[in-house]
Amino acid sequence: MSDFLIDEELLAAIDMGSNSFHLAIARVDHGEVKKVASMSEKVQLAAGLDENKNLTEAAQQRGLACLARFVGRLSSVQSKRLRIVATNALRQAKNGHEFIQKAAEILPKPIEIIAGREEARLIYLGVSHTMANSGRRLVIDIGGGSTELIIGEEFEPIHTESVQMGCVAFTKAFFENGEISQKAFEKAMTAARKEVSGLVNTYKAAGWDTVVGSSGTIKACRQIAVNMGWSDDQENLTRAGLDKLKDKLLKYKHISEMEFEGLKEDRRAVLPAGVAILYAVFDVLNIDKLVYSDGALREGVMYDLLGRFQHEDVRDRSVQALMGRYGADPKQAERVVETAQKLFDSVRKSLKLNSDDSDLLRRAAYLHEIGLAISHAGYHRHGAYLLQHSDIPGFSQIDQNYLSHLVAHHRRKLRAEAKNDVMKVGGIKLVYLSLLLRLAILLNHSRSDEMLPAIELTVLDAQQWQLSVSGDAKQWPLLVADLHDEQVQFKHWDIVLNIQSEKFIDSF
Amino acid sequence: MSDFLIDEELLAAIDMGSNSFHLAIARVDHGEVKKVASMSEKVQLAAGLDENKNLTEAAQQRGLACLARFVGRLSSVQSKRLRIVATNALRQAKNGHEFIQKAAEILPKPIEIIAGREEARLIYLGVSHTMANSGRRLVIDIGGGSTELIIGEEFEPIHTESVQMGCVAFTKAFFENGEISQKAFEKAMTAARKEVSGLVNTYKAAGWDTVVGSSGTIKACRQIAVNMGWSDDQENLTRAGLDKLKDKLLKYKHISEMEFEGLKEDRRAVLPAGVAILYAVFDVLNIDKLVYSDGALREGVMYDLLGRFQHEDVRDRSVQALMGRYGADPKQAERVVETAQKLFDSVRKSLKLNSDDSDLLRRAAYLHEIGLAISHAGYHRHGAYLLQHSDIPGFSQIDQNYLSHLVAHHRRKLRAEAKNDVMKVGGIKLVYLSLLLRLAILLNHSRSDEMLPAIELTVLDAQQWQLSVSGDAKQWPLLVADLHDEQVQFKHWDIVLNIQSEKFIDSF
Repeated sequence: MSDFLIDEELLAAIDMGSNSFHLAIARVDHGEVKKVASMSEKVQLAAGLDENKNLTEAAQQRGLACLARFVGRLSSVQSKRLRIVATNALRQAKNGHEFIQKAAEILPKPIEIIAGREEARLIYLGVSHTMANSGRRLVIDIGGGSTELIIGEEFEPIHTESVQMGCVAFTKAFFENGEISQKAFEKAMTAARKEVSGLVNTYKAAGWDTVVGSSGTIKACRQIAVNMGWSDDQENLTRAGLDKLKDKLLKYKHISEMEFEGLKEDRRAVLPAGVAILYAVFDVLNIDKLVYSDGALREGVMYDLLGRFQHEDVRDRSVQALMGRYGADPKQAERVVETAQKLFDSVRKSLKLNSDDSDLLRRAAYLHEIGLAISHAGYHRHGAYLLQHSDIPGFSQIDQNYLSHLVAHHRRKLRAEAKNDVMKVGGIKLVYLSLLLRLAILLNHSRSDEMLPAIELTVLDAQQWQLSVSGDAKQWPLLVADLHDEQVQFKHWDIVLNIQSEKFIDSF
Repeated sequence: MSDFLIDEELLAAIDMGSNSFHLAIARVDHGEVKKVASMSEKVQLAAGLDENKNLTEAAQQRGLACLARFVGRLSSVQSKRLRIVATNALRQAKNGHEFIQKAAEILPKPIEIIAGREEARLIYLGVSHTMANSGRRLVIDIGGGSTELIIGEEFEPIHTESVQMGCVAFTKAFFENGEISQKAFEKAMTAARKEVSGLVNTYKAAGWDTVVGSSGTIKACRQIAVNMGWSDDQENLTRAGLDKLKDKLLKYKHISEMEFEGLKEDRRAVLPAGVAILYAVFDVLNIDKLVYSDGALREGVMYDLLGRFQHEDVRDRSVQALMGRYGADPKQAERVVETAQKLFDSVRKSLKLNSDDSDLLRRAAYLHEIGLAISHAGYHRHGAYLLQHSDIPGFSQIDQNYLSHLVAHHRRKLRAEAKNDVMKVGGIKLVYLSLLLRLAILLNHSRSDEMLPAIELTVLDAQQWQLSVSGDAKQWPLLVADLHDEQVQFKHWDIVLNIQSEKFIDSF
């Protein structure tokens, strides 16, 4: 890709949904994301999950072929302004890493699997930026593998939930052979009601002024209702319209017989399951009508990206929220962040680190003590657990994996095997960041703002770092002891840490 | 043990410390715990940890012989009024379960391993009930394997910490052959300073009015200082006195040469390590003088037991605190608690359950949703993790293990293998409690206060339970579907769940 083709105003998002893959390219115009190109393909990844939850070879090939076509459209987009997110089908797939590895060979950057709640947050972001209405909204997005339900106001989601039901998964479970029956439809509705039942009371208590739907299933239902004359004046999907759609649908015995104006062929197979889910949601949440919005996950991803460039990175807000919940000491966190930043800056060039790495190190420095809320014993492991498993707005699973590994290795012994794990997850860079974080924490063991000796870190070569300590190290006997121990740990991860200071060396 | 020997006013505690085992028997008198008998033996369990952290056969035999002697004194104590707690040596020992199994054959109830922070809390409880002074206290307890430092006021601990240093462990590390040298002493002090450094700033910021020391090491140092005329008028251990003790100690070349008035023979070997630890603590925390208190872990255990009988069970307070921290929905928790209690009461007799089981089920019902704070996906596992690993005041590790298993299995599939794990941890009772909790949660899936059908649980035999549902089950289609699924899960754990209701059976 040659640089002169790049348009720095462009943003792009690939949404690898369980039913369809979508590519959206947009230009930023007065702070708004204006779509300039889009592509969608019904890859039906979720349909390619076998009984052991492995993606079949055929499904993987469909996915890769689609991604290859998308890549052809991305030549003018900077890779840092592109995000590739995957949702439920890859969350479920046991061999997802295999597919991601194959995809890495054709994609300009890695696929990020996002958690259900993060998907819900991003969908809300997409919808809220494309809706003119105000007040409190209930947003419903029925996907191929999961359905997101969000309550929010303005651009802020209040409740985000993702439940395990989608038009592809439910087609497989209840309408596999294409037959339509009252019994199958009721079974599908009961399953859908069960999935939603856990959130009903919370959502009803929170309340809403309008209901907004997004994505293919709802788009198709609403389009049919409008075309068949079952909609209201504003072309919304009403309860009455949905009733008529359901009644008509149940008159057919097989999906091949269905005749609906405006029904696209690639929607035909998954329509009964989609209608059953939507009907159950209308029923359980007592919905009268729903407005359709064009905004969806991919728009949300682009608005989120835009926020990151405009220093409104939701990830920094999430870091502060986690610190608050787990009562991490903010003063100590700030000290470690500051020291880590200094160390990072002095080796950034030699170790070929970039601003993403800097962000990662800073966030890990803020979060390294959250595990103390659980227990002092092994708190680095507890922190790592929380970072691995929590729903954290703005972070993909790989982001959380990086953070988790940094926090897991911030204290205690470094085993040689652990280095291999870290390498596998984030390459040599993650090894470097782990060691920088350890040093930053070690230098602040005293938990005080008292002056430390002046310290400088230089990289002699990738396997040899030098820490210069000026002044009389005898004044800091604990620091000396800690650095001495730390040299041993660095060695386990194949880095020689030289300590440069005459007086210091004497002290051993 | 015949009933007529039982004295219902007695309480007893066995403290299996890393250096000594202690037995204390007390009578409750006007709400105070008055000791009526005590025994101590220098078992030195921590000295019997080999390089792989396994307790040697010899150390296990010393421990078992001592426990057997203690048991001889316990014939008049009700077993529910006895607690047997073990601390750092068993926390560390990899083969601790082996020792605990052997001990189970001679003890009237199981050994409970308590976490470091719980140990600190109980020590504070013991000290605070035996001190007349008021104001804010710093309590220091140097044990054989760990040292506890607590700041508190009245009977309330504010900061509780347990650090990895003790007179037995440090003797092994720095004075193994009995030689005393300036160098060894300094090394021990540096190691001690390092252990304490993490809490210094927090503790200094919290501040204190008086410093109180408890347990053998501090008792011996203070006794020597008093006997040698190095103490103040109130017979406290002063900084000056400790200085003199250290200087004198360092004049000897070997522990066999030491001559201190009042030094007991079994304290001789661990005195240098104990003095080094105490000196480092005085130094780092800037302590001038310390009052000795006779109260210690075993007194704390007895006051804690007393609280449990007087409905001031600290465990219930901890449950509420956990719900608060993790924002668990209190209304839903109350609903599940109430249903669980009803189910429990109806099968209590047939399943031979007791009030401890009832407490356990109630607490698990309160806590079953705390994992939602981490993530919706797999939240039962997150809740189980938190309950397994958190420092929870009042709970021993086995208590937490029970709770963790109950929460881990409160939803989703029950695998047959999981039943074996549960059996191993808590026997068939824990299996029953798991199933009762599942039913209570299932019956409240709607998360509402709306009337449920009248339901009655009866145990036909241990393998066959019957749930009678009255009224027209068609009104509760989700409940019917859930119960149908649940029958399958119960079967995996070898219990047939009959559903008794004509209309209900029809609906399948």
